[in-house]
Amino acid sequence: MTTGYAYHEVFGWHDTSSAAGLFASDPAAGLQPFVHLENAETKRRLHELVVVSGLIDHLARIPTREATDEEILRVHTPSHLARIAAESELPKGGDAGDGISPFGHGGLAIARRAAGTVITCVDAVLDGAVDNAYALVRPPGHHAIAASGMGFCMFGNLAIAAAHAKAVRGVARIAVVDWDVHHGNGTQEAFWDDDSVFFASLHQWPFYPGSGGPGDGSSTTLNVPLAAGAGDEEVLGALERDVAPVLEAFDPDLLLVSAGFDAAAGDPIGGLRVSEEGFAALTARAGRICERLAFVLEGGYNTQTLPGLVGSVLAAR
Amino acid sequence: MTTGYAYHEVFGWHDTSSAAGLFASDPAAGLQPFVHLENAETKRRLHELVVVSGLIDHLARIPTREATDEEILRVHTPSHLARIAAESELPKGGDAGDGISPFGHGGLAIARRAAGTVITCVDAVLDGAVDNAYALVRPPGHHAIAASGMGFCMFGNLAIAAAHAKAVRGVARIAVVDWDVHHGNGTQEAFWDDDSVFFASLHQWPFYPGSGGPGDGSSTTLNVPLAAGAGDEEVLGALERDVAPVLEAFDPDLLLVSAGFDAAAGDPIGGLRVSEEGFAALTARAGRICERLAFVLEGGYNTQTLPGLVGSVLAAR
Amino acid sequence: MTTGYAYHEVFGWHDTSSAAGLFASDPAAGLQPFVHLENAETKRRLHELVVVSGLIDHLARIPTREATDEEILRVHTPSHLARIAAESELPKGGDAGDGISPFGHGGLAIARRAAGTVITCVDAVLDGAVDNAYALVRPPGHHAIAASGMGFCMFGNLAIAAAHAKAVRGVARIAVVDWDVHHGNGTQEAFWDDDSVFFASLHQWPFYPGSGGPGDGSSTTLNVPLAAGAGDEEVLGALERDVAPVLEAFDPDLLLVSAGFDAAAGDPIGGLRVSEEGFAALTARAGRICERLAFVLEGGYNTQTLPGLVGSVLAAR
Amino acid sequence: MTTGYAYHEVFGWHDTSSAAGLFASDPAAGLQPFVHLENAETKRRLHELVVVSGLIDHLARIPTREATDEEILRVHTPSHLARIAAESELPKGGDAGDGISPFGHGGLAIARRAAGTVITCVDAVLDGAVDNAYALVRPPGHHAIAASGMGFCMFGNLAIAAAHAKAVRGVARIAVVDWDVHHGNGTQEAFWDDDSVFFASLHQWPFYPGSGGPGDGSSTTLNVPLAAGAGDEEVLGALERDVAPVLEAFDPDLLLVSAGFDAAAGDPIGGLRVSEEGFAALTARAGRICERLAFVLEGGYNTQTLPGLVGSVLAAR
Repeated sequence: MTTGYAYHEVFGWHDTSSAAGLFASDPAAGLQPFVHLENAETKRRLHELVVVSGLIDHLARIPTREATDEEILRVHTPSHLARIAAESELPKGGDAGDGISPFGHGGLAIARRAAGTVITCVDAVLDGAVDNAYALVRPPGHHAIAASGMGFCMFGNLAIAAAHAKAVRGVARIAVVDWDVHHGNGTQEAFWDDDSVFFASLHQWPFYPGSGGPGDGSSTTLNVPLAAGAGDEEVLGALERDVAPVLEAFDPDLLLVSAGFDAAAGDPIGGLRVSEEGFAALTARAGRICERLAFVLEGGYNTQTLPGLVGSVLAAR
Repeated sequence: MTTGYAYHEVFGWHDTSSAAGLFASDPAAGLQPFVHLENAETKRRLHELVVVSGLIDHLARIPTREATDEEILRVHTPSHLARIAAESELPKGGDAGDGISPFGHGGLAIARRAAGTVITCVDAVLDGAVDNAYALVRPPGHHAIAASGMGFCMFGNLAIAAAHAKAVRGVARIAVVDWDVHHGNGTQEAFWDDDSVFFASLHQWPFYPGSGGPGDGSSTTLNVPLAAGAGDEEVLGALERDVAPVLEAFDPDLLLVSAGFDAAAGDPIGGLRVSEEGFAALTARAGRICERLAFVLEGGYNTQTLPGLVGSVLAAR
Repeated sequence: MTTGYAYHEVFGWHDTSSAAGLFASDPAAGLQPFVHLENAETKRRLHELVVVSGLIDHLARIPTREATDEEILRVHTPSHLARIAAESELPKGGDAGDGISPFGHGGLAIARRAAGTVITCVDAVLDGAVDNAYALVRPPGHHAIAASGMGFCMFGNLAIAAAHAKAVRGVARIAVVDWDVHHGNGTQEAFWDDDSVFFASLHQWPFYPGSGGPGDGSSTTLNVPLAAGAGDEEVLGALERDVAPVLEAFDPDLLLVSAGFDAAAGDPIGGLRVSEEGFAALTARAGRICERLAFVLEGGYNTQTLPGLVGSVLAAR
Repeated sequence: MTTGYAYHEVFGWHDTSSAAGLFASDPAAGLQPFVHLENAETKRRLHELVVVSGLIDHLARIPTREATDEEILRVHTPSHLARIAAESELPKGGDAGDGISPFGHGGLAIARRAAGTVITCVDAVLDGAVDNAYALVRPPGHHAIAASGMGFCMFGNLAIAAAHAKAVRGVARIAVVDWDVHHGNGTQEAFWDDDSVFFASLHQWPFYPGSGGPGDGSSTTLNVPLAAGAGDEEVLGALERDVAPVLEAFDPDLLLVSAGFDAAAGDPIGGLRVSEEGFAALTARAGRICERLAFVLEGGYNTQTLPGLVGSVLAAR
């Protein structure tokens, strides 16, 4: 089995500037400017781990590219794209829409590449060039809605790739599993009225962004809110009991996973407690839902190497 | 009411070097060197917040000083002190004893000052110069045992101050409350057989260092283990129900608090979820156990300003 | 002799955000975002050195305060102040005027404090509370012109204090020596037509900002351009030969020194090679020009402790 | 023409720990611990620039590997290798020999890879797989002598590759040009008595490590000391006048270049002032001495992207 892998060093140049935790800094309010929680090291360390551990030798590198206007506009409004493009020209860059999602000068090109890289990964899977693929991208995407970015996300990377798979590659049925600690509200919104894309999310609730609570669903939208403190047993159990049977019944041609490491124990934002073994089990279970699948990295705010994660990576060699 | 406050900039110079999360870095094992979790910013940001918020104008600065050999040896073995002293002369410094507690060249003097600063705070309270006091020190102390440092701690700062209060100031009865997320095993050990010092600890369990579980206690040792995920209600409830009545019955002449912010929600190490309001309530409750009290900062690994903490600080102005 | 000293921790919260060296970052042009050269550590390390070395025990702390509109407007245009005030309200802050001088949300209050702190130092000298004083402030000031900030400077800290000394304290004759590696164009401009303030500058030339070359002067403006590579001998020689006699003839009632450490050997921006002994000699020579004097820190971009600087500081104990 | 390029992410994991500028930190002496000048960002930023600029698309990636004992022992003593190997097992690692050259746990494997990567680059050139090659390695090597590391260097990377070229590939005549700002004392020592390797060095003098001054030479060793402050004209002139004719007369079969960016203007250690255009010209001139050549990166301590360097890189696309 061949697993594809895509990363570009420019993802580390996405400039989230300084912040005070989850808030904009404000000395008068006692909020010291510090490095933004969603900073380059959170993702770069994972890429370096893939390389240094030797896992890279067992992966097929997939090229990255920037998503085009046409591709982005399948999910987002022209005014959102235009606003990002305009602010990207400013010396200090701008904000994707909610005041906590800053980007630097030239940030548009990096956001285009994050979305485009999920497309190249999906294409590689659909072409059979690889059996499955992992897109290690930055900025993340699953909170971005049609008219705005939010929650550190600029464009809906996974949603854009799903829309591409439908529109260009003619994929009939697509399933999405989102196990980022936050509800994937943007992906949900993008396909709420679209019965050809089934969106299922496991996430801490009540929690940011507030959506995805009990009863928030549709015929092809399934939310499984989890209480703060839930660990492997609860998360794996929910995937096994509540999500997998429904998606298997949906019988997708392609499975996309919003795979956030912010559900990990020790993450400075999230309150779930998934272990590294838990992530490995989640990954293995997803592979049994649909053979053709691609993973997209969403959140993950720990800048320290998780030894267990390393163990998983080493075991995968 | 006058509150004393002690901090010295050299606490930011305690050099914990690089690490991979809680582990020593090891490239061959995929453990990338990174800044140690217990680094200068974790404590310096609190001092800067005290100053920038203006709280400092309402506090009485208490001088810091280095603890003497005699003071340290009331709690630690001569061989432990001698080993720290010897490794402190090495260009790269050494480790306090367990391999995850590094210190740099000259680290002995900083560790002496952390312990000595708790002594000056206790003396200021006993002298009536202040009503209570807060010692913002680094490195922390409550894991250090007689014969060794451990858990980022070099010397038992609070224990050394308690021993001083007994030996030099003739304080008859001392109570200790430890609400750091970890069990204060070192403080417990120091006074296990000493009925003049009552040690009570609220902490996550099972968790590092393993001690302090159900049934681990003595006539003047009380442990209240809490499950991961416990928040304000559980922690405050345990203080109110299980700890305060016992300590009030003990009728201490002095109360010392090992006040760790690693019990905070969002701490990258701890799994408790105490809010800023929760810490304020814990503090207020402690003040009703005994009027003469001093706080000693132990752990706390979030390097971001907590807005709620700021709120508490601003409210305290 | 009593030396005053003023520093406030909020100077470390002046948020210069990220940059690519001296330029705004621009991934498309290959300019990686990184920490701005004029960052908190460049000044905070000096304050910590003053404390940790024990020098602080020999200094009289002078309180800091924010400069008022009236004080700022003695030097700057209302529109400059209004623009800074407006951009200071933005979530990302703004730029002082030239695109390389960013500040964060709430930056106005910090810039006010930098200027106000030089005023309190000058007042302390004029009141005789101290013999001389050192204002360790951030952001720097000597490039800011009436209508704009520039070169990392928001307001002309020293110029505002000089204007205060004249207007409020009635000081008749003020001399300024500027040995920052860059020409103090803003200070020069502020007093070009004012014969009661004599401005003398030693600086690398040709260099940023371009002014201060041979022949650029007036009856009370003296520029001594120095070639890249000049060290103690050249800089001290120029002060002794070219500057000191002229200022002594001017017979000032107050001397203000723009003291930049960016003239130091090893500074990543400047090309002069002043040693720590050289700075000590410059300082001593300045003290013989006029007994009533205050120092204002301008630039200095080395974030590493200079052993020689430490030596000077230790010697001063 | 095909240019090879070798870099491995583990070079960023070489752990130089904390330091005070060029000195070991020492709080008692006022030397604050800070990030070591020779840190990961100094080299990683260059690799990321090569990728983000698109230059990577025009380069042939050359695999990296660890140098064997046999390869290292062609240049170093068994006791030096044994000492590095032993200290590499320690939790905190050790020091390469002079107290300012720290390495972390597992540092031996990284140092092996730095040396081995120069070998793979030289082999690729000798095999004709590429026309020339660039080894972006860390730690650097040219100060390491037979019995010890020094000056941030653990093993003599270039010297080991030259010894391999002679011993294994049978190359008869090898020339070395070293334009790092420091004298390449280790490389000089390795081949002082070997007339088949001609070592020529351009460097600041007097400067660290002290060797390479006027008259320090042999029949196949040429040192060209340059005064602090020398820029493009002096350095290029010295290469053209003093070095190139001698090496061309030597008629080498292979040219190795110790290419340090610490000769750049703005480097926080070096005092030369080579511009980016200057480095391009040095590189072009080296290529005319011998067609078969490989570059090895030595020092370079600026962690900021140099716009001119970017310009050179972009121009090379």
